[in-house]
Amino acid sequence: MASPVFDTHSVVRALHGVRSEWRAAQRRSSEPGGREFPSRDALAGIVESLKGVLFPMRLGPVDLRQESEDFYVGYTLDAALHALLTQVRLELRLVDGVPAGTQPTQVVQQFALALPAIRRLLDSDVLAAFHGDPAARSVDEVLLCYPGVLAMVHHRLAHQLYRQGLPLLARIVAELAHSSTGIDIHPGASIGAGFFIDHGTGVVIGETTVIGERVRLYQNVTLGAKRFYTDAQGHLEKGQPRHPIVEDDVVIYAGATVLGRVTLGQGATIGGNVWVTQDVPRGAHVTQASARQEPRTVPESVLA
Amino acid sequence: MASPVFDTHSVVRALHGVRSEWRAAQRRSSEPGGREFPSRDALAGIVESLKGVLFPMRLGPVDLRQESEDFYVGYTLDAALHALLTQVRLELRLVDGVPAGTQPTQVVQQFALALPAIRRLLDSDVLAAFHGDPAARSVDEVLLCYPGVLAMVHHRLAHQLYRQGLPLLARIVAELAHSSTGIDIHPGASIGAGFFIDHGTGVVIGETTVIGERVRLYQNVTLGAKRFYTDAQGHLEKGQPRHPIVEDDVVIYAGATVLGRVTLGQGATIGGNVWVTQDVPRGAHVTQASARQEPRTVPESVLA
Amino acid sequence: MASPVFDTHSVVRALHGVRSEWRAAQRRSSEPGGREFPSRDALAGIVESLKGVLFPMRLGPVDLRQESEDFYVGYTLDAALHALLTQVRLELRLVDGVPAGTQPTQVVQQFALALPAIRRLLDSDVLAAFHGDPAARSVDEVLLCYPGVLAMVHHRLAHQLYRQGLPLLARIVAELAHSSTGIDIHPGASIGAGFFIDHGTGVVIGETTVIGERVRLYQNVTLGAKRFYTDAQGHLEKGQPRHPIVEDDVVIYAGATVLGRVTLGQGATIGGNVWVTQDVPRGAHVTQASARQEPRTVPESVLA
Amino acid sequence: MASPVFDTHSVVRALHGVRSEWRAAQRRSSEPGGREFPSRDALAGIVESLKGVLFPMRLGPVDLRQESEDFYVGYTLDAALHALLTQVRLELRLVDGVPAGTQPTQVVQQFALALPAIRRLLDSDVLAAFHGDPAARSVDEVLLCYPGVLAMVHHRLAHQLYRQGLPLLARIVAELAHSSTGIDIHPGASIGAGFFIDHGTGVVIGETTVIGERVRLYQNVTLGAKRFYTDAQGHLEKGQPRHPIVEDDVVIYAGATVLGRVTLGQGATIGGNVWVTQDVPRGAHVTQASARQEPRTVPESVLA
Amino acid sequence: MASPVFDTHSVVRALHGVRSEWRAAQRRSSEPGGREFPSRDALAGIVESLKGVLFPMRLGPVDLRQESEDFYVGYTLDAALHALLTQVRLELRLVDGVPAGTQPTQVVQQFALALPAIRRLLDSDVLAAFHGDPAARSVDEVLLCYPGVLAMVHHRLAHQLYRQGLPLLARIVAELAHSSTGIDIHPGASIGAGFFIDHGTGVVIGETTVIGERVRLYQNVTLGAKRFYTDAQGHLEKGQPRHPIVEDDVVIYAGATVLGRVTLGQGATIGGNVWVTQDVPRGAHVTQASARQEPRTVPESVLA
Amino acid sequence: MASPVFDTHSVVRALHGVRSEWRAAQRRSSEPGGREFPSRDALAGIVESLKGVLFPMRLGPVDLRQESEDFYVGYTLDAALHALLTQVRLELRLVDGVPAGTQPTQVVQQFALALPAIRRLLDSDVLAAFHGDPAARSVDEVLLCYPGVLAMVHHRLAHQLYRQGLPLLARIVAELAHSSTGIDIHPGASIGAGFFIDHGTGVVIGETTVIGERVRLYQNVTLGAKRFYTDAQGHLEKGQPRHPIVEDDVVIYAGATVLGRVTLGQGATIGGNVWVTQDVPRGAHVTQASARQEPRTVPESVLA
Repeated sequence: MASPVFDTHSVVRALHGVRSEWRAAQRRSSEPGGREFPSRDALAGIVESLKGVLFPMRLGPVDLRQESEDFYVGYTLDAALHALLTQVRLELRLVDGVPAGTQPTQVVQQFALALPAIRRLLDSDVLAAFHGDPAARSVDEVLLCYPGVLAMVHHRLAHQLYRQGLPLLARIVAELAHSSTGIDIHPGASIGAGFFIDHGTGVVIGETTVIGERVRLYQNVTLGAKRFYTDAQGHLEKGQPRHPIVEDDVVIYAGATVLGRVTLGQGATIGGNVWVTQDVPRGAHVTQASARQEPRTVPESVLA
Repeated sequence: MASPVFDTHSVVRALHGVRSEWRAAQRRSSEPGGREFPSRDALAGIVESLKGVLFPMRLGPVDLRQESEDFYVGYTLDAALHALLTQVRLELRLVDGVPAGTQPTQVVQQFALALPAIRRLLDSDVLAAFHGDPAARSVDEVLLCYPGVLAMVHHRLAHQLYRQGLPLLARIVAELAHSSTGIDIHPGASIGAGFFIDHGTGVVIGETTVIGERVRLYQNVTLGAKRFYTDAQGHLEKGQPRHPIVEDDVVIYAGATVLGRVTLGQGATIGGNVWVTQDVPRGAHVTQASARQEPRTVPESVLA
Repeated sequence: MASPVFDTHSVVRALHGVRSEWRAAQRRSSEPGGREFPSRDALAGIVESLKGVLFPMRLGPVDLRQESEDFYVGYTLDAALHALLTQVRLELRLVDGVPAGTQPTQVVQQFALALPAIRRLLDSDVLAAFHGDPAARSVDEVLLCYPGVLAMVHHRLAHQLYRQGLPLLARIVAELAHSSTGIDIHPGASIGAGFFIDHGTGVVIGETTVIGERVRLYQNVTLGAKRFYTDAQGHLEKGQPRHPIVEDDVVIYAGATVLGRVTLGQGATIGGNVWVTQDVPRGAHVTQASARQEPRTVPESVLA
Repeated sequence: MASPVFDTHSVVRALHGVRSEWRAAQRRSSEPGGREFPSRDALAGIVESLKGVLFPMRLGPVDLRQESEDFYVGYTLDAALHALLTQVRLELRLVDGVPAGTQPTQVVQQFALALPAIRRLLDSDVLAAFHGDPAARSVDEVLLCYPGVLAMVHHRLAHQLYRQGLPLLARIVAELAHSSTGIDIHPGASIGAGFFIDHGTGVVIGETTVIGERVRLYQNVTLGAKRFYTDAQGHLEKGQPRHPIVEDDVVIYAGATVLGRVTLGQGATIGGNVWVTQDVPRGAHVTQASARQEPRTVPESVLA
Repeated sequence: MASPVFDTHSVVRALHGVRSEWRAAQRRSSEPGGREFPSRDALAGIVESLKGVLFPMRLGPVDLRQESEDFYVGYTLDAALHALLTQVRLELRLVDGVPAGTQPTQVVQQFALALPAIRRLLDSDVLAAFHGDPAARSVDEVLLCYPGVLAMVHHRLAHQLYRQGLPLLARIVAELAHSSTGIDIHPGASIGAGFFIDHGTGVVIGETTVIGERVRLYQNVTLGAKRFYTDAQGHLEKGQPRHPIVEDDVVIYAGATVLGRVTLGQGATIGGNVWVTQDVPRGAHVTQASARQEPRTVPESVLA
Repeated sequence: MASPVFDTHSVVRALHGVRSEWRAAQRRSSEPGGREFPSRDALAGIVESLKGVLFPMRLGPVDLRQESEDFYVGYTLDAALHALLTQVRLELRLVDGVPAGTQPTQVVQQFALALPAIRRLLDSDVLAAFHGDPAARSVDEVLLCYPGVLAMVHHRLAHQLYRQGLPLLARIVAELAHSSTGIDIHPGASIGAGFFIDHGTGVVIGETTVIGERVRLYQNVTLGAKRFYTDAQGHLEKGQPRHPIVEDDVVIYAGATVLGRVTLGQGATIGGNVWVTQDVPRGAHVTQASARQEPRTVPESVLA
């Protein structure tokens, strides 16, 4: 008898063995059962629907007409919320520390109620991009073309999920934007109205960052942590604020790196490629030249 | 009676309210009507078709055979041009300042006539990549695998649209490449033959940049503006040249930043991470060490 | 008679002319025939299948259940290997220098036999990411969300293809990850167990890089070549090791650039944005401040 | 030079020649231009949408919930009406004899207003099927499974289009049902409430047929014309009623053929395979045995 | 303000009204909630999977290879059974009279265990078709091309569902075949091995039909009921056997109609278009001529 | 340990056993290998392409314009012929008796050369339908809506395949039409120009039928065989002509059955439901009444 082209069976057995080792090491069940993990594809679909719900005439279906907007919004929202409910249940089931009595339906309802405020914030971001870029011709162009605006649509939805105790769903929503824009905003970051990232590739914004209103960033800016804080036993203290506070009207040019729980004062300007590890006063202009004057004593590990 | 799972209706109402506010603020019509904006999906389809038209045996359908190339090119081109015509009409309708008598069909016909020259330029880019990267094994590999080449296919099409007075369509075509390559070339940039970007993530090239022939760039290079020029009333002067001129045979290594309307002379080499805000003479080699010697007087805000 | 909307025929003729010129210049055949080049779409499908084969319950189909894992793995693996066989044949046909007697089926079988070891290495990468990021909540989250882990799944498959003499297939697999993560790892790079890239956008790792175990990298790190080595005749010597050696337990923070065949000694830490062109001793901490003290004599062209 | 595998070019030329002959014979334009004919695929999509509009919880999307019905109905209806508008315009443009001033939008609006009455009629058909078939377990099963009910959904929509002067759109809608059920009802046929066709394959109902309420038919029943009426010049008189009148509560068993403008009186029963070409009195039972007694004088050409 | 193109809102309201009337009349809940009805699309997918499970190398994926059959069968079967489980739960929930303790998983497991016997029966049907049609060239052609064989694949699956108390799922499976073949076999019909229907359009086989082994049928054959039996109160007695018994080796030619609980004796032949309402002895040949001699006393209502 | 939901493994084993029995009985190889059988899906795609090739402006893509017809036809034809070549190779490999030296490419080339004549014949069928149905409004409507015309498009392609020694491909093409129209024409039937089938459900036309020009048929007409001819050993003689000859200008009304190698003379009319087993003279009108007068001596087994 002819032999098969490939010895698939022995590879299957070997892979089975490696999986068993992993599960034993991870104390995972080897019992029958299905996958119980939120789905990236499902989240992607939900976010697409929510984009249409938030901006029906610009991000909804091309054949939508204004007189049917509410019909479309209502139907799409309801379907998206039920799809989200499934994912919320999956995340809550994974978590040990969920407060008893957390109702997935209440979580989703609360998320839905936040959407109008999110739309309002996104409108401010769109206007900021329009006013911040002399090349922009219309607010519609900004919403449709600018990766920085797309990243904020994802972030404002992800941040809401994060605040409601759904960090994994939030992370997936954020990574979807990261993959298509190169902009990596942790869902935990708190960002005020009128935020604008131009170009954007390589931007990293850490979990405990706090950003005020009307802030503007360029590509490759990092708002990171200097180091992780550990307690007396050397365990990471996860709750600690460790990323910058950026006050209103700050501008940070391309390639600048701001590390640690420093404060960039209102209206400050951080020049391109500058490295900042100390507070910057209100209205100051920091350049490579000026930055070089300052004493540098901390190890510059960048963590976001 | 049981109540619905989610109170969708009140969210729909609230979103309706926010949209109305936005439209009032933007002086948009609240009258019935459809969307009248170019479509990113439509443009993506058109670009895919044009890739096949330009390189039928490499980017066209896998089952294409050389003896049917012209059939394929003709059919695909005709369909793509009609699809483009629809998008051109949508952009021209948005614009106030279109010269009276601009015929969408003539615009598209002119675009079509430019395709052979675009193919010729792209051939030169492919050869430049092939010769510029010792790892490249064939010109076909370069066309299929190199993000820098893909970015140039988009750019040369986008630049033609830009020159024909279609900046929005041009921008959408550029952003499609930005999203999948991390390379952000403004459609306004003028780029000569034999251009090659290696690796490419994080590259930003501004609107009024002028690049000569046989220029080579690495990842994270920025060709940006120092500042925006404003007229006496403080209004941005949009037409002003504000990005670098890069002459023939220049090489710019990774992370270098060149700002403002400076000229990099023919054959100059800009080292990695170097910061350039002044003219560089022909054939010069600029490194971090040499750059540090020079006086730095301008604020280094990086704008592209 | 009315004339057609567009003069498609003359564009078709002109494009035909440009293609003929190119083929003549490239000494390509103008004879009838089909495309004979590996397909990016085919490779993308194969990699998707292999992800499911390697991690069936997390990257396989959502409705998969543990009791059917082996069925799924066997069926999917067999189909993927046959699809890969087609691509392997296409690449081997392109190559002049393939050792006589190289059997595509044996090449694919050898690839299949390497999968269990690849899974084991990827498990170590997942654990490294989980332990390296205080924000990570579970190993599953890491596998599903982290672009650095996705890049390693692609790299470990691509590296195996590269080692088996299939550099073009390897490159396509690597570029698929580059496009969606912004992380650009040459398939030739040799990387030990427990490797973790955080954030990742802008990372570039060159072909002859050698990385030990438990190494950690942040965004925008470049492990590149200082220059290409040429022999007496000025030809590039492609086989020459020209990228860094990174020993076990090294950490390299964001924006750092390491160039040339230098060695970063075991346990060394390279600070953010630091520029390294010389060996770093074991356990050393290199910062911008310390780096600036050292003499710099080499031109810093960064090549990866 | 190798020759192509197939001589496609000469076949293309020959087909071109045959098309030219056809167009010359049909006095069609050979000038450039696009297709201007309603689309079967478009109609299929519109009918699918209207099914969901009419029966949202049973034929709409599986994830629809009752509290969102009106949102779904409104959005889907609006999109379907605009899609229908495109098709209506295409049909009206083809027609010479359209009354001047016929507004496509008014035609579509009138169609929309008829939908609630159509739903009501279809409810009566569903109930008739449920009561007429002892195997039916629920009205939902009837709506989802019975080809006779599906055929009536199409017919009642097609008949409305037919009455509004859109015979071509009506025909396409009818043929879609014919193809999937084997039931061929001309859109011109007038059919009362509570109509039920069991099994249905092979049923043919002609254009001028008039059917009362609560009528029941089985498979392979033909309600056809005996012959076409011609005027003195031998031209077909198309307006002439030439198919049967079937009064309320008639039952017609499988394979029966009823030809010409005969009347089947209220409550009559026509047995299987019976051939009827004369009026049948109220309440009569016609069987093959009884039918055979009657004189037969007409040629039995069956035309529907 | 311009008015909308269509007055969609009033149509939505009117349709809402009609739905409410229907729900009130049907005593349906108007409370919020989702659809709880088996899905035709889901069943279609399950049947497609089961076809591949039963005949992997002929109806499975084109790229399947024999050495991977069991992998494919196992994976596909497991997924199909879980999908079926969902549908079984939906049907059982609809039913009032399900015996307490009926476990959906046990129902599905029992169904799975019946598959090998179903395959064996279908093999006998394939052979019967191959031997019964002189035009058939191979058993593979028969399985791939013959609508009569396709109808039997559906029927044997549907009959198993019917026997396990899932008449609605069974009906949907049967109607899928009816729609694509024109052959209408009630899932309740009991059919022995080696059954063959040639051409098939218009065949109707009723619920309580019992068919022996090696029976052959042609197009437009009806095996129906003469009338419905009613009890003293005039209610339909649904359990009553009311369709024919067809013994082994009977042949029934095109257009023949057999009505009521008559028995066609072993080896009998029923001629084309013959009408049979009485028992037929073993080995008899019934033709139109012979049939016409017999007294006919029953009304020939044909019901299946 | 929990047990799996379903005991899939034992079902897989049992199905494996049944397959092995079948293969042993059929003397099929149990050796590893792939499927080597023509694909229904592939044929469906090829026929769709050929429809567009034959009628580009009516059955081709909706966005096609007349000035690009030849481009479209050439590209689509070339791709369809190469796809057909794959299927031709598969069928020829299955056959033992293929004449040595039969070249698949020549077979396909010959098929291609026949397409213009097929288009001409189909034009005559379209005109026949247009003139034969008073309800038809235009030749375009006929081509788009009439199942009888669709069946002929398939038949004329299938007949060409049949004549070129590809009966299996021919059969698959015919069954695709059978499934969607209920019209079952054996690919072997020879049919002259100007053929029209109205309604069509249930029509069966046997393999050796010969039909002249301008013939018209209605639904449920059978042109079948009386019996199979067997030679002295009782073996079926497959080559024997056994179906009717229908001369020019014959009309056959619904439900008529014509059996055996009888000739319907030029211009004859066969009434509805008539049963014909003897020659019919030129111009004769056969009705049920007249038919009943004739002696009937043959057993009326209907075989097609």
